[in-house]
Amino acid sequence: MKRRIGILTSGGDCPGLNAAIRGVARAAYEMFDAEIIGISDGYRGLIEGDWQEMKRSQFSGILTLGGTILGTKRTPFRNMRVIGEDNVDKVAAMKKNYADMKLDCLVTLGGNGTHKTANLLSEEGLNVIGLPKTIDNDIYGTDFTFGFHTAVDIATDVIDRIHTTAASHGRVMVIEIMGNKAGWLTLYSGIAGGADVVLLPEIPYDIKEVAKCVENRIKNKKSFTIIAVAEGAMDRKEAKMKRKEREQARQEAGFNGIANRICKELTAVMPEIEARAVVPGHLQRGGSPSAYDRVLSTQFGVHAAQLIAQQEYGVTVALVGNTITHNKLSEIAGVPKLVPVDHQMVQVARDMGISFGDK
Amino acid sequence: MKRRIGILTSGGDCPGLNAAIRGVARAAYEMFDAEIIGISDGYRGLIEGDWQEMKRSQFSGILTLGGTILGTKRTPFRNMRVIGEDNVDKVAAMKKNYADMKLDCLVTLGGNGTHKTANLLSEEGLNVIGLPKTIDNDIYGTDFTFGFHTAVDIATDVIDRIHTTAASHGRVMVIEIMGNKAGWLTLYSGIAGGADVVLLPEIPYDIKEVAKCVENRIKNKKSFTIIAVAEGAMDRKEAKMKRKEREQARQEAGFNGIANRICKELTAVMPEIEARAVVPGHLQRGGSPSAYDRVLSTQFGVHAAQLIAQQEYGVTVALVGNTITHNKLSEIAGVPKLVPVDHQMVQVARDMGISFGDK
Amino acid sequence: MKRRIGILTSGGDCPGLNAAIRGVARAAYEMFDAEIIGISDGYRGLIEGDWQEMKRSQFSGILTLGGTILGTKRTPFRNMRVIGEDNVDKVAAMKKNYADMKLDCLVTLGGNGTHKTANLLSEEGLNVIGLPKTIDNDIYGTDFTFGFHTAVDIATDVIDRIHTTAASHGRVMVIEIMGNKAGWLTLYSGIAGGADVVLLPEIPYDIKEVAKCVENRIKNKKSFTIIAVAEGAMDRKEAKMKRKEREQARQEAGFNGIANRICKELTAVMPEIEARAVVPGHLQRGGSPSAYDRVLSTQFGVHAAQLIAQQEYGVTVALVGNTITHNKLSEIAGVPKLVPVDHQMVQVARDMGISFGDK
Amino acid sequence: MKRRIGILTSGGDCPGLNAAIRGVARAAYEMFDAEIIGISDGYRGLIEGDWQEMKRSQFSGILTLGGTILGTKRTPFRNMRVIGEDNVDKVAAMKKNYADMKLDCLVTLGGNGTHKTANLLSEEGLNVIGLPKTIDNDIYGTDFTFGFHTAVDIATDVIDRIHTTAASHGRVMVIEIMGNKAGWLTLYSGIAGGADVVLLPEIPYDIKEVAKCVENRIKNKKSFTIIAVAEGAMDRKEAKMKRKEREQARQEAGFNGIANRICKELTAVMPEIEARAVVPGHLQRGGSPSAYDRVLSTQFGVHAAQLIAQQEYGVTVALVGNTITHNKLSEIAGVPKLVPVDHQMVQVARDMGISFGDK
Repeated sequence: MKRRIGILTSGGDCPGLNAAIRGVARAAYEMFDAEIIGISDGYRGLIEGDWQEMKRSQFSGILTLGGTILGTKRTPFRNMRVIGEDNVDKVAAMKKNYADMKLDCLVTLGGNGTHKTANLLSEEGLNVIGLPKTIDNDIYGTDFTFGFHTAVDIATDVIDRIHTTAASHGRVMVIEIMGNKAGWLTLYSGIAGGADVVLLPEIPYDIKEVAKCVENRIKNKKSFTIIAVAEGAMDRKEAKMKRKEREQARQEAGFNGIANRICKELTAVMPEIEARAVVPGHLQRGGSPSAYDRVLSTQFGVHAAQLIAQQEYGVTVALVGNTITHNKLSEIAGVPKLVPVDHQMVQVARDMGISFGDK
Repeated sequence: MKRRIGILTSGGDCPGLNAAIRGVARAAYEMFDAEIIGISDGYRGLIEGDWQEMKRSQFSGILTLGGTILGTKRTPFRNMRVIGEDNVDKVAAMKKNYADMKLDCLVTLGGNGTHKTANLLSEEGLNVIGLPKTIDNDIYGTDFTFGFHTAVDIATDVIDRIHTTAASHGRVMVIEIMGNKAGWLTLYSGIAGGADVVLLPEIPYDIKEVAKCVENRIKNKKSFTIIAVAEGAMDRKEAKMKRKEREQARQEAGFNGIANRICKELTAVMPEIEARAVVPGHLQRGGSPSAYDRVLSTQFGVHAAQLIAQQEYGVTVALVGNTITHNKLSEIAGVPKLVPVDHQMVQVARDMGISFGDK
Repeated sequence: MKRRIGILTSGGDCPGLNAAIRGVARAAYEMFDAEIIGISDGYRGLIEGDWQEMKRSQFSGILTLGGTILGTKRTPFRNMRVIGEDNVDKVAAMKKNYADMKLDCLVTLGGNGTHKTANLLSEEGLNVIGLPKTIDNDIYGTDFTFGFHTAVDIATDVIDRIHTTAASHGRVMVIEIMGNKAGWLTLYSGIAGGADVVLLPEIPYDIKEVAKCVENRIKNKKSFTIIAVAEGAMDRKEAKMKRKEREQARQEAGFNGIANRICKELTAVMPEIEARAVVPGHLQRGGSPSAYDRVLSTQFGVHAAQLIAQQEYGVTVALVGNTITHNKLSEIAGVPKLVPVDHQMVQVARDMGISFGDK
Repeated sequence: MKRRIGILTSGGDCPGLNAAIRGVARAAYEMFDAEIIGISDGYRGLIEGDWQEMKRSQFSGILTLGGTILGTKRTPFRNMRVIGEDNVDKVAAMKKNYADMKLDCLVTLGGNGTHKTANLLSEEGLNVIGLPKTIDNDIYGTDFTFGFHTAVDIATDVIDRIHTTAASHGRVMVIEIMGNKAGWLTLYSGIAGGADVVLLPEIPYDIKEVAKCVENRIKNKKSFTIIAVAEGAMDRKEAKMKRKEREQARQEAGFNGIANRICKELTAVMPEIEARAVVPGHLQRGGSPSAYDRVLSTQFGVHAAQLIAQQEYGVTVALVGNTITHNKLSEIAGVPKLVPVDHQMVQVARDMGISFGDK
């Protein structure tokens, strides 16, 4: 059996991309007569015909490497989600290049946006397999995406380091964790880092409730408080607004990130405290994948190769429980996976006395 | 509601013990009127009546701390597995001290040996809840034990570091990973560390097959080979022996650890190679728990407190899929969880060209 | 010989404070009949008489602990630098409390501000020994302060992680490193992290030179550029302004941190690039000290105890070459140690093709 | 100016080799018209004529990479130290290949053995520059070699992890640190890791003194003891023997590493304790260099390029105080740098109550 496989990585970079690429490649070479085409910078390369034949040795030594050897782009596909006129051309270009490369199938590694496009291409008749990558863990149908646990490790390490400053100075430290829509990363790293308050996009907060928690700690002779807040957290008032409305209101108020705002709001209510914001930002998505993510990425990659061997396309690989499996692209594309407000881990956190700022 | 809870940690120490203790304590204090008794050095303290009332502040700041604040012992219970005459006295002593402490229940954190004793005490009428702790991940009924993923991180870091030496010197490096009966730790860290050969207790190896793998790599211009071997790995001949017989044969042969033996065996077959053993040993069980294990330990601890609130005893906490749940002690005690030879991850590894030394 | 020693930690917290405290205490207990008084929150505790007798066991297990077990404050001494009327009272209070505690001497751990006050107290007749702590490495008379190398490790790790994002996305990443006046931390971590451009407070930059460097890299097919910029970096125009003038100009321009400004300035000149700012902030001063800093802090602490044994006061401990020694407080207080523009490491960096944005 | 430079790495691999190679190359390309020849596997490649022209891009991205991209060998030069007949041929071969490659100079990165050969080649008329690499820090004339501080970090991390096991189980843990002749690595990591006993090759120990220290700790209610022992440590009796004699005596006694022996000796004297050996081994020399070593390696490499620009040969680069400088090969070759028994750090350790097992 011979298969010609195109691979691309799309969206924000994320630990484990190279490990997953290596997984696909090594298993493909091992299992059948594989030729692998590396497509540059995600869908940009597929549209513009920017690709190269890969050699087997290029997949060696990349297991531990952060980022992606294929390059990635975020921007050009903002509008791919709705097929407008411009995108019709892009889709045509991608189909043409797929044909020019003589691909048997296309493997796309990416997040929700990537999966939408992957599904679109699948509907257009291409043989597509997705691999769920994102530090946000917000892809429907898989318990975990690769990259997530590495980001949890990094964010937890940040909280650990901040902890000692907080304790030494008796301060409130507000740490802004990545996650615009989904709070998974904040929830996990908040619990792992021993945060006292965890604020998620899914659970609107009331600054008075947050202040109450700080006060209670002071009463119990805890001079400091650690607040882990997701980038996309919002207060109750904002939660009732539409997105555009909220963004406008924030712009007018000189919004400079949620962590900074919470510092301001808190010191407005409690002028006696010192509050500081920490915004680790891109730090959370870089560097070598953790052992967990290397194993998961490898399993995902190998499963993709197994699917290719069976000519099973139009699916994305997934972890369900402890089993690597796959879902139909059509069933998961465009469905974000948010933290359910009654999720077991939310309850665990509440039972420990962690506040979500909501009551 | 008021509850008086005894806690003990038994068996080899393991990252996450303190995080789990903190989880039980914080949730118990939060959920009901809890009094917590710390029992020293595992069952030794329960037998000898060595315990102290804990203060709430003693559970603060221990989330990230390696080891166990309660102390642990391994030795005194080797023989508890079978109730001999001596043990009858020990069980009586434990029941007496349980009564003296006026406990409502006993929470035991430990591995397979600990769970056997926990089940025994449960059968004797004590209210017992187990928490599955071990870097070996060999407790039946739970997908993961706490401590395991931290050990995977450490073992993977060891393999990573050895990798550069191996590549620079063109050597065969044999890394001995903890795990006497179960190969989980070797399997996970072997895949995460990019090992070329993975040898598990569950899959007897043939040194000729291992050598063949090294040869193939040399043919493919890979001058080095990484072999991850579990402490308890054995070759085909040994696998047919009974345990005592095998131990005797090894003693006679001057056995000095499996990694050293594999080096010897390999260089006997391939005198042209340089082979070196690395035995990280206790390193793999020490230090601060990883983010993953802090979350898991916390969830386990909180679940134990929830069980206490519901007066549900005679069980051990477990992770099944992504759900924290519990199993009956009677159903899991004494049942080790080994790596099935057809486990999905074994197949994944084979599909990538990783050798298990068996064919 | 009997000595009653007061210890305080002042200024921003910093890795190695506890290791140094432990060094003083263990050596003091070992060498003579020591009583140690822990003064809370730096000079605040000395002014307000907030202190406690320490027990030997309190210095156990703190070698690896980040922050300071004594607490620290920054704010109350902003104005101590000039003895105004208010400060006269503060000094009187400190002298009174020193007498009330019956101290033989006072050990102060801190940075430049702390040393000014230490010198002032020494001039007022108290027996004072300083220990040079700061992640900025800007204390005159010592080659290194403790805390500095740990901060270098953290900042380097940040640059490492950002590197993979930069390379995968083909971006310019601008990383803001702590250091308002002195660029040591940026210089060291910039070289260690492989930055392409290093911008220091001591070497004013010209954005056109920075842009030229990015362009050159693009010409050489390097799609990304890493810029390490010290918090206190400034461009040539600003360098000619007085501090207040500069601050005002920045405020009017809506200054939001130097990294963000450089991103804006760069994309104004080169609209085709993507530039992103990363501001790790407090992260750089938290957590467990590195091995280097544990050794240095311990040596510093023990040397302080040796000085106490010899009743040599009015000095601060220092590392010169590889020798632990001490300088007179009067000679080093208030003298910041900046990066000389012709420092050997600056030349090394230039010889490697690293740009300082100045030519 | 044009220069043709050969580079080789020899001896055991060590973190920072690639960073130093990159430093030489980047500065050489920047400063003059450089051609760089990579010689494979140390002197083996020079003898056998195994080399390749390097491209500029091959030095990119290797700053953080462990090991050496040029490969290294230890064995073939055991006997180079004395020029026997066989070596005459080797030297002739090296001179011939140097001429064939049309080198202007040869840069050798290595430890004491490497420097001996480098000096020999220099005496034979070749233009040689050495770079002092070794985790042992035992090269005369430089305060630190690169690789040393990374090894200190790793060994300290090992001690940290073992600490928690020791404390939880109340055990004596004996950790064997690399260093056959010189105890620098054990001294630094022992202090950084908070070891209670530090045993160095330079200070013969008496097991009774070690036992006394363990006893004292037990009296002071410290249930555990951490012993950091250098590979090459020896007791007083052995210290009086000649090397061969000692090796023979050890072989007869079934010597299995110094850590294991100390465990045996201790439990012979104190049967009530549990003692365990940990031998991290090769782990200590692998992986990415620390920030400290990346800076030092880079400085060393750039200094070598500066020396080439000035045509100053027959020297090895060195760190003296905070200055990068160089020494004549003839003055440092073959002179090991051991820990002086009255070194300031030894005194610091003694003043803290750390035992060297000698009194």
